[in-house]
Amino acid sequence: MKEFRFKCWVEEDGEKIFGPGPVELLRLIEKEGSLSKAADKMKMSYKKAWDMVKRLNEHSEDPLVILKKGGSHGGGAQVTAHGIRVMAEFQSIQDELKKVLESQQDFLQKLK
Amino acid sequence: MKEFRFKCWVEEDGEKIFGPGPVELLRLIEKEGSLSKAADKMKMSYKKAWDMVKRLNEHSEDPLVILKKGGSHGGGAQVTAHGIRVMAEFQSIQDELKKVLESQQDFLQKLK
Repeated sequence: MKEFRFKCWVEEDGEKIFGPGPVELLRLIEKEGSLSKAADKMKMSYKKAWDMVKRLNEHSEDPLVILKKGGSHGGGAQVTAHGIRVMAEFQSIQDELKKVLESQQDFLQKLK
Repeated sequence: MKEFRFKCWVEEDGEKIFGPGPVELLRLIEKEGSLSKAADKMKMSYKKAWDMVKRLNEHSEDPLVILKKGGSHGGGAQVTAHGIRVMAEFQSIQDELKKVLESQQDFLQKLK
């Protein structure tokens, strides 16, 4: 079956500052309540996930994630209300893009 | 400056069969009238470009490119009328996606 695929992200001066990777990390943090568990599920190092959270927070009006103190990899992680809004809005933008592509099935008929 | 970026392509059973790379190749073939010149401009080997054209033609109702016989890398290459329609339609789909994203500037304000 032929289908459209797309990827959408936000850049600033050529640097990716938001997109599907960060959204997946936020979703997992929300679900797991822990950055190390979220990193594990994404098969990403704790360090890389931590850097991503740091960068995301730096690029956001208000923090998207709050890390709570604990042991070395301990403590919890929480997606803020602002983070949840940002995720939801990004999802709705992706849904819009999907709708546009679903309305373009004619194009797929030109391919085989 | 923050901006949305996106990529859109067509897959069949997980294989990419159309997208920005093929469109660029088609554009260059149209401009250069030659597959080897088009491949050069894309810094792609002639073999890779030839394979791409072959795959594109196989995945299209009608051929997108016609290769004319000539020397080893010689002969001309021509984008068919069908190819031009496909390129134009893909461009217009991308324009639609761009329009959706341009209407979502509010989201960018949530990032900084």
